[in-house]
Amino acid sequence: MMFTQYETVRFRHVDFAGIVFYPRFLEMLNDLVEDWFAQALDRPFSRIHQTHGIPTVDLKVKFKNAARIGDELEKSLWVQALGGSSVTCGFRFGKSGGATCLEGEVTLVNVARDKDSGSIKSEPFDDATREKIAQYLKS
Amino acid sequence: MMFTQYETVRFRHVDFAGIVFYPRFLEMLNDLVEDWFAQALDRPFSRIHQTHGIPTVDLKVKFKNAARIGDELEKSLWVQALGGSSVTCGFRFGKSGGATCLEGEVTLVNVARDKDSGSIKSEPFDDATREKIAQYLKS
Amino acid sequence: MMFTQYETVRFRHVDFAGIVFYPRFLEMLNDLVEDWFAQALDRPFSRIHQTHGIPTVDLKVKFKNAARIGDELEKSLWVQALGGSSVTCGFRFGKSGGATCLEGEVTLVNVARDKDSGSIKSEPFDDATREKIAQYLKS
Amino acid sequence: MMFTQYETVRFRHVDFAGIVFYPRFLEMLNDLVEDWFAQALDRPFSRIHQTHGIPTVDLKVKFKNAARIGDELEKSLWVQALGGSSVTCGFRFGKSGGATCLEGEVTLVNVARDKDSGSIKSEPFDDATREKIAQYLKS
Repeated sequence: MMFTQYETVRFRHVDFAGIVFYPRFLEMLNDLVEDWFAQALDRPFSRIHQTHGIPTVDLKVKFKNAARIGDELEKSLWVQALGGSSVTCGFRFGKSGGATCLEGEVTLVNVARDKDSGSIKSEPFDDATREKIAQYLKS
Repeated sequence: MMFTQYETVRFRHVDFAGIVFYPRFLEMLNDLVEDWFAQALDRPFSRIHQTHGIPTVDLKVKFKNAARIGDELEKSLWVQALGGSSVTCGFRFGKSGGATCLEGEVTLVNVARDKDSGSIKSEPFDDATREKIAQYLKS
Repeated sequence: MMFTQYETVRFRHVDFAGIVFYPRFLEMLNDLVEDWFAQALDRPFSRIHQTHGIPTVDLKVKFKNAARIGDELEKSLWVQALGGSSVTCGFRFGKSGGATCLEGEVTLVNVARDKDSGSIKSEPFDDATREKIAQYLKS
Repeated sequence: MMFTQYETVRFRHVDFAGIVFYPRFLEMLNDLVEDWFAQALDRPFSRIHQTHGIPTVDLKVKFKNAARIGDELEKSLWVQALGGSSVTCGFRFGKSGGATCLEGEVTLVNVARDKDSGSIKSEPFDDATREKIAQYLKS
């Protein structure tokens, strides 16, 4: 099972050369993870960031084709590996029905956040979340 | 030889949890590459983007420690591998005299850009640029 | 007639205090203008930026209520004044069925862009565009 | 007295037309306010955002000339009006020794923030801060 969203490249995404500036692709990736947590895992960031967080600890990306203003991108995410308190997702952004723009892997860690000190420590996913994540495991 | 710059974490870099949002770290990385090209390679982006570009084709990052508003970061870059028209740089961001925040590798390709069509194709670095890049090769 | 779009506040929009960082509101405003041009005026930015541009020359905003992650915003735009080559739009962002977050005015100028020099000069809107813009004039 | 900082236009600031995208100018303005608070008012954002905030409530900007990658900008700020818990600053960004890029006014409100609920309410500036702000009042 894959989680898929669509996003159109906008003026604010592109650089002087008219192509998406790569940190903007990573904002789009963060949006995809945010939507997955809200829509598929029942853990909307509006709720979890009171007490928890999902920091990104590892990121690997290959940028294969440029995307230009107006291009519609299909953004897909699946699970490569599920650890106790971490999950590694594969992702691919491509033009609708066409070329891959980027693909890679991102590892997120579930953390509890101390409200007063702001310090964080990893915490295992609860069972309900774990089951939902597992449905996206690539066999 | 390493190329090093300093940057203080600002309000606009941090997220709800008070730590740098990772796409902002990659904007800081782009700034570091931009400064390296301008100050060390004599190829300021203001000049090269009329006819050329340096798209990022591969990126690997490990995020090891959070950075907070007011932290001063030491950003360092060196060359891991120099190909005909591509260069792979290692990088590390750390707190001054302290913990590593992130480290990784980024691969850039030198491209010529057709002004009318906007299409790009890879082009070998010229000899003067090549020599300057080679000075940052990690032995 | 008003042009209206909806946008949900995301993690990347909010600051350390958990509320939208105001430059992100202006990115949302730029998206609204971009959608208006594409959907209502038949002038998608993907097409017009080859030869033209719509720089913002004047902006006035009152920020009235904070917006938080997860809030759904209703973004509305209408025309306050239509000049030869400029248009002044009123705008309002509010929580769905509720409080105003921001409201203001933005003035855009239609310019032709010289592809070689990059220099720009104002140019009257063509008649078809002018008619479409006029439908959004607030009486 | 004016508070002045310098900032060079970077790749990440500019849009498809090669000029600064206006929300990036407002990030630069936020940086200027942040530096003024840290360097002139002894209220670094790293400290005040634990318990307080300085939300922007009103903004007026005229964009007069484009700025391009590599341009060095002189960013100046002064005080137009000082209220009990609010301050209205004038600002101007110009090319070094040259044309004005933008100028305007921004009004900030000093607020105390309830750590648990996140709710805010305006609070008068303390006397020490008030005196420091008053030194930047335009006579």
